[in-house]
Amino acid sequence: VDIASKLKTNPAKWDRRTIARLISEAEANPKKAEVIVNSILPFTGNAYVIGITGPPGCGKSTLINKLALQIRKKGKRVGIIAIDATSPFSGGAFMGNRVRMREASQDSGIFIRSMSSKGSLSGLSLATSAAIKILDAAGIDCVIIETVGAGQMQTEIASTAYTVVVVLQPESGDIVQALKAGLMEIGDIFAINKSDLEGADKAVNDLTEFLSTGHYRGEWVPEIVRTIASRGKGVVELAQSIERHRRYLESSNGILARKNEIVRNEVKNLMYYRITKIVEKKLNLPESQEIFKDVVAKRISAYDAAKKLMGKNPDREM
Amino acid sequence: VDIASKLKTNPAKWDRRTIARLISEAEANPKKAEVIVNSILPFTGNAYVIGITGPPGCGKSTLINKLALQIRKKGKRVGIIAIDATSPFSGGAFMGNRVRMREASQDSGIFIRSMSSKGSLSGLSLATSAAIKILDAAGIDCVIIETVGAGQMQTEIASTAYTVVVVLQPESGDIVQALKAGLMEIGDIFAINKSDLEGADKAVNDLTEFLSTGHYRGEWVPEIVRTIASRGKGVVELAQSIERHRRYLESSNGILARKNEIVRNEVKNLMYYRITKIVEKKLNLPESQEIFKDVVAKRISAYDAAKKLMGKNPDREM
Repeated sequence: VDIASKLKTNPAKWDRRTIARLISEAEANPKKAEVIVNSILPFTGNAYVIGITGPPGCGKSTLINKLALQIRKKGKRVGIIAIDATSPFSGGAFMGNRVRMREASQDSGIFIRSMSSKGSLSGLSLATSAAIKILDAAGIDCVIIETVGAGQMQTEIASTAYTVVVVLQPESGDIVQALKAGLMEIGDIFAINKSDLEGADKAVNDLTEFLSTGHYRGEWVPEIVRTIASRGKGVVELAQSIERHRRYLESSNGILARKNEIVRNEVKNLMYYRITKIVEKKLNLPESQEIFKDVVAKRISAYDAAKKLMGKNPDREM
Repeated sequence: VDIASKLKTNPAKWDRRTIARLISEAEANPKKAEVIVNSILPFTGNAYVIGITGPPGCGKSTLINKLALQIRKKGKRVGIIAIDATSPFSGGAFMGNRVRMREASQDSGIFIRSMSSKGSLSGLSLATSAAIKILDAAGIDCVIIETVGAGQMQTEIASTAYTVVVVLQPESGDIVQALKAGLMEIGDIFAINKSDLEGADKAVNDLTEFLSTGHYRGEWVPEIVRTIASRGKGVVELAQSIERHRRYLESSNGILARKNEIVRNEVKNLMYYRITKIVEKKLNLPESQEIFKDVVAKRISAYDAAKKLMGKNPDREM
């Protein structure tokens, strides 16, 4: 209640420092995250969560910058969480983020936060969930989650956001790659960014054709929006498309289904996170070292060792 | 025993088709993998496992092609397992693999296999472990594991191989990136490939300086080898360096420590794999759906839901 009251004392003049500190605490310490999330729970559930993903270099950050400013025009507060789940080798795509979001970062009604996967993916997902709830409780109307890079985190966005925007660029076989990455199945809206580039018509046609085969979630037929983020083109249309999808979800059972999916995913990540700790503990037990020696000596197999460490009925007892 | 006898009937004329089929079965079905691995266990433990990793484009495949041919010259059989753990967006770096390994693929004493992470990372790791054992039991003397891309899988190579070779190229801040990716700590040998490019001297100097600070595993001081894989240069030196590291491990406690680490990692992956299945099952129970509804309605938090699903004493009962 203490934390919640700090977040809530003066909604008109939100305390950015408190928000930043709470997110940092939740990120650094899952037990703290639990305390924070449990204490602000009653004040959550109002923010609309938009997930934006796509390949590196497609212009996500620039587009999010413009989109956030567009949403601000309606008097709404925006939170942006940029998640870097890339391998360090994929390069500095992420480092320019702040630069590309400069306009947004100067707006007093926009809060921007980066998170990276130093630890496990489930740890990152938990920190993201906590950050969304903190922004939500602080009175933010709309949270935009940007994910960069790695496969699993990209599709995980579908279990984190209400509306998923997949950003693609016309060139370089992006659509084929998006298909392989499982992004086609999760997009509610496809933004063909840099749509002044050659190949934009083809990209839109290919996408339309693909979608006509019915490969999307639920009843909503994904919309395609052409954008040129660097010049702010198509951003109003993108915001309108998101609003249409939101109204669709709210007028159908869709919103509840998505909320259920998000909760399921959050509970799953919490379970994995806890189990990871338990497994680590078991692996470090003195008796485990003896079991490993038995495997090295081929007295038992690794499969038998895992069974020994897990107990007889893990499915009944876990 | 049936499987083992098939692998063993005629060691002089090894049955490539049986090897390929067994690896496919192990990859497709973890229960089959257990049966196969348990049945061939007595015949494993002879192959030497070399892990080769590095950023995309550094020339790993070309180098492995030449290295495999070099090892063949000593009359040894070589197995190559190329693991693609990249996001589909990182592009077709992997597709040219077979082309770059053409010479090796035409050698009757070299067996090449690709594996990709369609499912989970732990699933991929398990399939890789099984494949190593199958090649080992089939009489292969040396297994080379190549990993491409994603962070976690790259460092996992250190818990899979006896000798780890990190391949870097002189340009583009590769060393800085390798540092960030945690590759500097796992390399037993560093191959500066494309060492005819400008910056090779600087790369070697930077690397030497970094290693002089003692940031490496154990007592072995990592060696640096200059290679030009496309022209076969430095490959003899690389093979010699690997041999030196092998002898070092075998003359010290190192080999046992590595074997222990590999077993620990395999058991860990098996535990995760099993637990993943259990968690999925729990999440799909009818009563779990009711719990999710309670979370959506904010009657309980996701943290409480996870605790309910996991039972009271997961650490004692798992």
